[in-house]
Amino acid sequence: MALDWLFRPKSIALIGVSREKTHPGYLLLYSLLKIGFEGKLYPINPKTDAISGLKAFRRIEDIEDEVDLAIVAVRPSLVPDAIRSCGRRGVKGCIVVSSGFKESGGKEGSELEKEIRKVARENNVRLLGPNCMGIYSPAARLAFYPNQTAEAGPLGFIAQSGSLGVIFYTLCKERGVGFSKIISFGNECDLRFAEFLEYFGNDPETKIIASYLEGVENGREFFEVAKGISRKKPVIIWKAGLTKSGAKAALSHTGALAGSDLLWKAVFKQAGIIQAKGLEELLDIVLAFVRLKLPRGRHLAILSGPGGPAVAAADAAESCGLTLSFLDEATARNLCEIVPPFGTSISNPIDIGFGSVDPVFYKDATRLVAEDPNVDMIMVIGGSPIYRSKSLLRVEEFAEEMIEVSRLIEKPLVTVLPGGAFARKAFQRLYEAGIPVYPSVERAAKSLSALIDYKEGVLYGCH
Amino acid sequence: MALDWLFRPKSIALIGVSREKTHPGYLLLYSLLKIGFEGKLYPINPKTDAISGLKAFRRIEDIEDEVDLAIVAVRPSLVPDAIRSCGRRGVKGCIVVSSGFKESGGKEGSELEKEIRKVARENNVRLLGPNCMGIYSPAARLAFYPNQTAEAGPLGFIAQSGSLGVIFYTLCKERGVGFSKIISFGNECDLRFAEFLEYFGNDPETKIIASYLEGVENGREFFEVAKGISRKKPVIIWKAGLTKSGAKAALSHTGALAGSDLLWKAVFKQAGIIQAKGLEELLDIVLAFVRLKLPRGRHLAILSGPGGPAVAAADAAESCGLTLSFLDEATARNLCEIVPPFGTSISNPIDIGFGSVDPVFYKDATRLVAEDPNVDMIMVIGGSPIYRSKSLLRVEEFAEEMIEVSRLIEKPLVTVLPGGAFARKAFQRLYEAGIPVYPSVERAAKSLSALIDYKEGVLYGCH
Repeated sequence: MALDWLFRPKSIALIGVSREKTHPGYLLLYSLLKIGFEGKLYPINPKTDAISGLKAFRRIEDIEDEVDLAIVAVRPSLVPDAIRSCGRRGVKGCIVVSSGFKESGGKEGSELEKEIRKVARENNVRLLGPNCMGIYSPAARLAFYPNQTAEAGPLGFIAQSGSLGVIFYTLCKERGVGFSKIISFGNECDLRFAEFLEYFGNDPETKIIASYLEGVENGREFFEVAKGISRKKPVIIWKAGLTKSGAKAALSHTGALAGSDLLWKAVFKQAGIIQAKGLEELLDIVLAFVRLKLPRGRHLAILSGPGGPAVAAADAAESCGLTLSFLDEATARNLCEIVPPFGTSISNPIDIGFGSVDPVFYKDATRLVAEDPNVDMIMVIGGSPIYRSKSLLRVEEFAEEMIEVSRLIEKPLVTVLPGGAFARKAFQRLYEAGIPVYPSVERAAKSLSALIDYKEGVLYGCH
Repeated sequence: MALDWLFRPKSIALIGVSREKTHPGYLLLYSLLKIGFEGKLYPINPKTDAISGLKAFRRIEDIEDEVDLAIVAVRPSLVPDAIRSCGRRGVKGCIVVSSGFKESGGKEGSELEKEIRKVARENNVRLLGPNCMGIYSPAARLAFYPNQTAEAGPLGFIAQSGSLGVIFYTLCKERGVGFSKIISFGNECDLRFAEFLEYFGNDPETKIIASYLEGVENGREFFEVAKGISRKKPVIIWKAGLTKSGAKAALSHTGALAGSDLLWKAVFKQAGIIQAKGLEELLDIVLAFVRLKLPRGRHLAILSGPGGPAVAAADAAESCGLTLSFLDEATARNLCEIVPPFGTSISNPIDIGFGSVDPVFYKDATRLVAEDPNVDMIMVIGGSPIYRSKSLLRVEEFAEEMIEVSRLIEKPLVTVLPGGAFARKAFQRLYEAGIPVYPSVERAAKSLSALIDYKEGVLYGCH
């Protein structure tokens, strides 16, 4: 494919890599070595013979073999010359890590960015960045941060901010979610967001596309590409810079023109894109898409031990456009047989009681509810710090019961536990077992609603 | 004071306490023993001579000494008789733990609730509940759950849901925030929300009042009392049951009439109450009020290592009605001297750079910004999984620098770190040191804005 030089390079030159351990160039080289990049690595540094055990070259021209990709981390004023030498050497493209271009706000940076774009085109070299961190690909053993591993997953992430790429990677991995690829693209000087979207759309390794975006150069192209790709795969975007203050901040971060809130909302809706508002919501929604099938419809059953969160869950569901299922008579009858008579309720939300609740009620009740023809998806709220005999905590038992029942049912199931230290192990178990768990009913409801909004918006062709 | 029998009883009878460890009555007795209640405890159970080492009585009439308070945990149909015997015995009030009243939805439960109210009035006994868990007071060594300790704090919490009382307690304690008292009140059959608010308003141990509320019996009284109390102390309420589905759920949880979203919003605004939307927001806002002084105005400075979160923080601040400070020329000049030239920005949000950032930059920059006369409050975003030499993580160092700088500045300061496992220790350190830390910029901004909204709404008399 067109961008194989970027995603599957056989050899990489690192221009401006230093032996100093805090230098961005060193960090990138270290990351590539750590993940076990299997191609050739050529550090370029005129002042030394070797870096991290690799032979260093004075200039890219000194390398005899073919070079697919160059990572450029020199001072901004030296970038144009680096690109020229790459062009002469037949390098297909550069990842320009250096910052100090359009995002710096001054005329000088802006002119320099125009210059590198011009130089790149004249020399037939494509550019990722500048002001970016590059590519993570477990399949190709590419990494831009030392904690990135070779273990792959279904998620493609396009990050305009490199630091967010690192943060999002770290938090997803803690949830058991792995990546096909991450692209940190910074200023959109040559390679564009739409090209990455197109690439991920056609990439068989990528099942779900997520993004942190500040702005795009060509709105029309973005819209057309996104509209096509979202029909094939879910596209979830956290768009920052939606307020006046945010847009100003975006301009000085990646030089992006952020656009207005209302405009983006309309664009997302019409293109079938799921909009996430903030990092936590992006993580929450991605977890649901990675782990769950799309629900048949928007009818939700809520099952809860604690009564307060059940009320809040009903609020949250309705606020997200979900409907509480009217339970079938048979379900109600069967619930009556397992749920204690007092301090409980068998209408939806189903309150199975707090004080004396046994995790096995949860499992049995969840299974009953999943069989109800009026139920499309299920939220189970558990794990208050429940006391039994000498142990204060039964949240781990709750997690095990949920893992067991999830194997017996077909409908999308999410769980909710308070986000406290006492529930940490239970969260871990649920993440490992691939069951979405959220620290609040609002976040669980929002994630479920994203699944059905996507289905109705894209698959039924509402746009 | 009027409710001293409830908050400072010298003797408690537990009517309907069982030796069975999952029985709510046993749980309450165990909690009282565990926290070390110093008064007399009289378990009432006709079928046994002793429970948990305490002499058990057949009937309350058999107790010779005075009884201030009775906890009633018998079957609902037996509650009226229990109240009558309390009245005969001169008990001032009962906490009715039993459920199966108005919240059960049927006519029977509703009639029974009317009956116990009538019986209570006829016998000059006041009631908390039914369908509640009662009182936690570290000063009086009262508890309704076994994890509640005798360590006190400034927060008074009024919980319509007992399970939420337990969850909120647990999560606050993890954040280093302690309680003056918690009231779990369930169905508002006799003692009313407004009475608790009034009590907390006059309680010198309570500095901040928080609540989970489903509905109140007397809206006008609630409004008048809240309006008065909010001028003395911040009152933060999470009102559930604001949607049609939520209101229906509230009715079957505590029998509360929940009312409409718009109505409550107007009531809260006019009464100077801070509205929290959900458990996480309640926790977030409470943390800010417990730890920070009220800011002078709504001008915020944002300081960040990672660039993406800085853009998102600007969005979040503006969305909450905060204004980004225009930094003083001297501040900008001084920042220039400590912040690296590339990949950074000294306009607000101040981007101090991701790749090469040293925690000491954070400290120095925060101190400079705090001295700026145009800055009323500060948000510092740190702690991406930053790499240095062999250690991947510098978030702990970030936490230490923030703790140090917080001692040198007067203005409200909040910090933001990704909510991942790698930042767990840093969160713990910041909580312990009394510095608010949030897992997202949106939550940090919302919490800061609550402080200034409260100040402008109440102290400047905008209502």
